[in-house]
Amino acid sequence: MKINTNKLLMLPGPTIVPPEVLNAMSFPVIGHRSKEFSELFEDTVEKLKKVFITENDTFIITGSGTSAMDMAISNIVSKGDKVLNIITGNFGERFSKIVEAYKGESIKYEVEWGDMADPKRVKELLEENEEIKAVTVVHNETSTGAKNLIEEIGKVVKDFNTLYIVDTVSSLGGDYVNVDKFNIDICVTGSQKCLAAPPGLAGITVSEKAWEVIEKNDKVGFYLDLKTYKKYYEEKRQNPYTPAVNLIYALNVALDLILEEGIENRVKRHERLARATQEAIMAMGLELFAKEKARSITVTSIKYPEGIDDKLREILNKKYNIVVAGGQKHLSGKIFRIGHMGVCGEKEILATISCLELALKELGFEIKESGVERALEVLGK
Amino acid sequence: MKINTNKLLMLPGPTIVPPEVLNAMSFPVIGHRSKEFSELFEDTVEKLKKVFITENDTFIITGSGTSAMDMAISNIVSKGDKVLNIITGNFGERFSKIVEAYKGESIKYEVEWGDMADPKRVKELLEENEEIKAVTVVHNETSTGAKNLIEEIGKVVKDFNTLYIVDTVSSLGGDYVNVDKFNIDICVTGSQKCLAAPPGLAGITVSEKAWEVIEKNDKVGFYLDLKTYKKYYEEKRQNPYTPAVNLIYALNVALDLILEEGIENRVKRHERLARATQEAIMAMGLELFAKEKARSITVTSIKYPEGIDDKLREILNKKYNIVVAGGQKHLSGKIFRIGHMGVCGEKEILATISCLELALKELGFEIKESGVERALEVLGK
Repeated sequence: MKINTNKLLMLPGPTIVPPEVLNAMSFPVIGHRSKEFSELFEDTVEKLKKVFITENDTFIITGSGTSAMDMAISNIVSKGDKVLNIITGNFGERFSKIVEAYKGESIKYEVEWGDMADPKRVKELLEENEEIKAVTVVHNETSTGAKNLIEEIGKVVKDFNTLYIVDTVSSLGGDYVNVDKFNIDICVTGSQKCLAAPPGLAGITVSEKAWEVIEKNDKVGFYLDLKTYKKYYEEKRQNPYTPAVNLIYALNVALDLILEEGIENRVKRHERLARATQEAIMAMGLELFAKEKARSITVTSIKYPEGIDDKLREILNKKYNIVVAGGQKHLSGKIFRIGHMGVCGEKEILATISCLELALKELGFEIKESGVERALEVLGK
Repeated sequence: MKINTNKLLMLPGPTIVPPEVLNAMSFPVIGHRSKEFSELFEDTVEKLKKVFITENDTFIITGSGTSAMDMAISNIVSKGDKVLNIITGNFGERFSKIVEAYKGESIKYEVEWGDMADPKRVKELLEENEEIKAVTVVHNETSTGAKNLIEEIGKVVKDFNTLYIVDTVSSLGGDYVNVDKFNIDICVTGSQKCLAAPPGLAGITVSEKAWEVIEKNDKVGFYLDLKTYKKYYEEKRQNPYTPAVNLIYALNVALDLILEEGIENRVKRHERLARATQEAIMAMGLELFAKEKARSITVTSIKYPEGIDDKLREILNKKYNIVVAGGQKHLSGKIFRIGHMGVCGEKEILATISCLELALKELGFEIKESGVERALEVLGK
């Protein structure tokens, strides 16, 4: 097995993992039923709670972000239950598919991809539809580079007898998330995005209000049953089923790095890098995909100019060893996406913008204005 | 975070992970939607198929062994479906709980813990009960140190219109498993036992006969939906949801080590080490928990002698840095378990037996005959 270790991951996940986090991966495995593991696990959970900014019960699951999305739905939705799914992209849609996979009724509030949901419309939909058990929203739509106003939507949802479920998979640790302040009942995330740990773990927080629903729910399922995770954590500070021990080592170190930098600083860094990237892109004469008001600070989506498609990504990857993402679903071949999250810094942004300029020129695109100069301007302020 | 790296894991999982496998864990993360990852993933799946000895579709899931047990049941069982669960310990019981978690009807064939199931009784139960959709059995009961005759049970099940589901979590790569020859429709395993990789991945094989049932099944669930895994693997040689990339690196190397050693050799090594351990234990005057005919070759369970309990494990751990397991459920405080699986060799067995002798003496147990001498005799043959 030969892995090219010279690739710069500018993806909306997985992101660059710092060496000290990668190193922790190769520590010897310890027994997951040992006191030593319980201490490590509790410490990791407590650090994750600080990043979520919550007092709610928090769990770390061995699985992808989707496993936590599944948990968020399957633990509260029984057959026929109504859920309002705010859909602004691929991951918003996924929540609605999960609701249907558990035979719930998905009420879809669909917004054009690249735009954000309107909190007022959420209010109307909640008023129009009786007995909505939960509202789901994706904070940062990895698929479109657009984000939703999760604080404002939280204020709306608070006045209704419904749960508020938020996917912060590609925002937690990058954009501003405050589970308790935003009134989020269930918040899910993944290890491999802004947390800058390797993929394979998911996080989920559960409020008291959510537990009340979970306790009464006619649950179907086993591996992702939240009640079992709660019981084991309360009794033993462990997971009910064998966890990915080495990934916990890594996540623990990654969370240390986040808390050392400070969440506020981290958000500011993401804002700054996003601004530099987005202004540089526009300076070059490319068009951003996400609407201005909705623009993500962790991922930038860019329309391919006329005559240019995923060949651009191939040149960036093959010639310059920079990996950026393409479009998902109907946006495939129409946009590309640059992730600037986790531990990404100035040098990575500047390298990416510069090489993008070279690749665009190679494909015959006429650069309007130097992207890297604009990025330098923004970053030099 | 400080991990004591001086512990010898003689657990029935997780087991000792060789340095070359651990090292692979800290390779930089690559994008899970890249061609490079597809190649690595397909290579890993193909190697795992060789270890399962199967031509059946095989999947690697980010989750514990239990996630694959859940998949095995949830993809074939709809509300009210009958499943015959052979229960010879904690993990056999788990299958029955999963059936009930999906609102299936569990028909339980319970055998005293430490013993094995009788294939003739399985036949009778299949004849007595109509419309049994599947039979589940655990090959090697980690909880009791006893194993089941999965080849013989497979011959019985073959004559009925039912699926054969086998848990080889603590046997694959250690004891003899041949999915195709044994007529196994769905076979599940975990990364952290005899495969000697770190925890966090599970494997599952699916026969044509099983697919026919899965296609028709009124499936509930999302993250563990086998059809989605099949679709993604066929189209892209990828997982539908972000996999634990670094664990795939490690599993790939661990599988290389298994195929280099050769499965037959590996089984013989396990047999030899089990014999040495078990004869040494008996020589010392301790009693094995599992019935002779049912004895596992990957884990040895031992009754605590009068007046001795988990203090023994504590001495082994604290004083000698050797970690062995206690009993589960009603066997807690009554037995202890030594895992000798994966890459475990002579030196680990001899160190464990020797230190066990010291710990027993410290607790006032009168050693009948030298355990380490008996082990040396067996290993010297």
